[in-house]
Amino acid sequence: MSSVIECCIQANKAALKLAATSTECRNDMLSAMSDGILAAESDILKANRLDIEEAEKRGKDRAFLDRLALSSARIKDMAEGVKAVAALPDPIGEITESWTVDNGLRLKKVRVPIGCIAIIYEARPNVTADAAALCIKSGNAIVLKGSRDAHESNAAIFDAMKSALIQKGYEYRAVQFIEDKTREATAELLKQGAYIDLVIPRGGDELKHYVLENANMPVIASAGGNCHTYVEKTADLNIADKVVYNAKLNRPSTCNACEQLLVDRAIAEKFLSISLPGLVDAGVEIRGCGETLAIFPKASKSTEKDYYTEHNGYILSVKVVENTEEAVDWINEHGTKHSEAIITGDKVAADYFTSHVDAACVYVNASTRFTDGFQFGFGAEMGISTQKLHARGPLGLKQLTSEKYIVEGEGQIRR
Amino acid sequence: MSSVIECCIQANKAALKLAATSTECRNDMLSAMSDGILAAESDILKANRLDIEEAEKRGKDRAFLDRLALSSARIKDMAEGVKAVAALPDPIGEITESWTVDNGLRLKKVRVPIGCIAIIYEARPNVTADAAALCIKSGNAIVLKGSRDAHESNAAIFDAMKSALIQKGYEYRAVQFIEDKTREATAELLKQGAYIDLVIPRGGDELKHYVLENANMPVIASAGGNCHTYVEKTADLNIADKVVYNAKLNRPSTCNACEQLLVDRAIAEKFLSISLPGLVDAGVEIRGCGETLAIFPKASKSTEKDYYTEHNGYILSVKVVENTEEAVDWINEHGTKHSEAIITGDKVAADYFTSHVDAACVYVNASTRFTDGFQFGFGAEMGISTQKLHARGPLGLKQLTSEKYIVEGEGQIRR
Repeated sequence: MSSVIECCIQANKAALKLAATSTECRNDMLSAMSDGILAAESDILKANRLDIEEAEKRGKDRAFLDRLALSSARIKDMAEGVKAVAALPDPIGEITESWTVDNGLRLKKVRVPIGCIAIIYEARPNVTADAAALCIKSGNAIVLKGSRDAHESNAAIFDAMKSALIQKGYEYRAVQFIEDKTREATAELLKQGAYIDLVIPRGGDELKHYVLENANMPVIASAGGNCHTYVEKTADLNIADKVVYNAKLNRPSTCNACEQLLVDRAIAEKFLSISLPGLVDAGVEIRGCGETLAIFPKASKSTEKDYYTEHNGYILSVKVVENTEEAVDWINEHGTKHSEAIITGDKVAADYFTSHVDAACVYVNASTRFTDGFQFGFGAEMGISTQKLHARGPLGLKQLTSEKYIVEGEGQIRR
Repeated sequence: MSSVIECCIQANKAALKLAATSTECRNDMLSAMSDGILAAESDILKANRLDIEEAEKRGKDRAFLDRLALSSARIKDMAEGVKAVAALPDPIGEITESWTVDNGLRLKKVRVPIGCIAIIYEARPNVTADAAALCIKSGNAIVLKGSRDAHESNAAIFDAMKSALIQKGYEYRAVQFIEDKTREATAELLKQGAYIDLVIPRGGDELKHYVLENANMPVIASAGGNCHTYVEKTADLNIADKVVYNAKLNRPSTCNACEQLLVDRAIAEKFLSISLPGLVDAGVEIRGCGETLAIFPKASKSTEKDYYTEHNGYILSVKVVENTEEAVDWINEHGTKHSEAIITGDKVAADYFTSHVDAACVYVNASTRFTDGFQFGFGAEMGISTQKLHARGPLGLKQLTSEKYIVEGEGQIRR
């Protein structure tokens, strides 16, 4: 039997045990994992050096190396992150609904773990600890499949957590790590729907589509965001200017950054004259429609493709629209259902926008950059979903749960 | 462009309009659809006769013809069913959570339609009306793909609903029907993930697996139920006898019927001597483990396969177990996560069972036959899900919804 299948079987078995553990037990597991990471600092740093050397050999750039590199401080942060998850409220066991039907049967809907979750991640080594912590806290077993680039670091972090769980006598099989670095191992993992209840890809668009096409179990994918900010004609233009600047520039590479600016014709000249010079000064390239160009000649002409594109950097498309209805239609046509904002002083326009825009998060007079598990107050985040089933928006602990009905009676039978 | 794609595009466009309609508007649509079905009675009966003649030609049996046949009374029931859905509470717009974060942003989570749902169904023609009613009520556009056997009847029911919507000026594009009867049309429909947010197969296991393997959009499948009833040693044996009899015999072909009986060793002889003769008298074949045979020689020897099988008829597997722990492990190994019951007088055993059994519905001292949207008080049912993501158990109106975050501020930006 391959090691991939064996990992999945072990995790699946452990999932049933973990589902029945107390909050205290799962918090103790996290505490042990956190201590284990701190205690293994030198091993983790040694492993990380191997990854760094390998990445240097392959000519990776400075930003890449920085994301990969661990330090004492980063390991401490990682361990504290695991403890912070322990401190969050336990979602498991919450009774979300309860009622009694005419024949006296008492029904309740109880939050339970999903079961066994696989994570395929390209990101930094700390995801190994973060993802494991979120899954254990929510009572789920986890199968970790990290990237080749961070393999030694990931393996060392996993070993530290596993050793700590074994030492304290906890259900260590609930955290599994695929030692096989190859793409074939990923392909094999995606066929283990018999053991894995959910797979979460965390990484670029290529990974997401690969997983969606090849997985034989349900997928929750964090998808890209082609986010719009629409400045309606009654907007406070100072607020609009500040919010657009923030949504575009606070961190331009993120999925909740503003990529598209829509402006009502009635205020286009006034607002664009206020807003665009500052953006250009900050290094943003403006690509506008004909009307935008007439108002702001420094802009270049936008293409149809620009309006569908998550620029992921210092580019902003601009389009003048007639009214809220046109803005909403435009967003529903061009957006990716992630985060969309209206800046307005008119409650009717705000209500029309929030009820008609089809997106995970719809904002009135605020920056789209707030779409984030920590900003929403979830205390943690496994990604941001733009799909409509199961979980939409930031994935916190609750989103890593399912529900089951418990029905109690006194011998009721169906007539 | 093929008619399948065209249907999906039309439904997708209509979905956005429908999502913004009022409860009253959607109820009026259902009322018009219901009246339309009643008014088209003769057309529907004429179409149904064509299906019946075709089925007779192909030598279908009496039970098949009975499921297919419509009558004035059945058409009236169908129309009343649509009106009954109109009378249910509207799930759309419900604020399921709301809170304010430190920076003053006000967040609320609002129930919204999923969008555009495709249903592929093998069942009786009334599903055409039922499914359309549930989707419209929950603000979703629907693409209907019925079976070849009921094609003329389905088409006539669809035409009646569509004409009524057009006549009253409602968004008739929200209900689409695939006129192409071929399997190729189904295959094409399953590739329209760009327009369809969710596909629900309703039918046998073959259809379910075909859809799961071929759909490029999320799937919610109603799956089979290999349901257990476990009689624990403290059970009231009269209650146990009554519940097992009901769960097995109330309607043996359904997914929530009892297929597997587990009995504690301590009471096996007493309980099986009470229970099995009555089941045999009612025509049930008993397939038991060695201990069962020793107690009840009329039983035949069960195979390993019997314990994994949804018999779907007059067969019951019986197995003697040591205790609740063994029963739970057995169920988690052999069950299909549908409906599982314990009969017990012991609260500790009941709690262990409900917290450790991994299934959509877990019963204490009641028949598994209650797993049903109507019995649960949902007022309607689109199927029963045994998957853990999005919806588990009976699919009522709420389960046909998604949620979106609406975030309101006064110009908040992210630091």
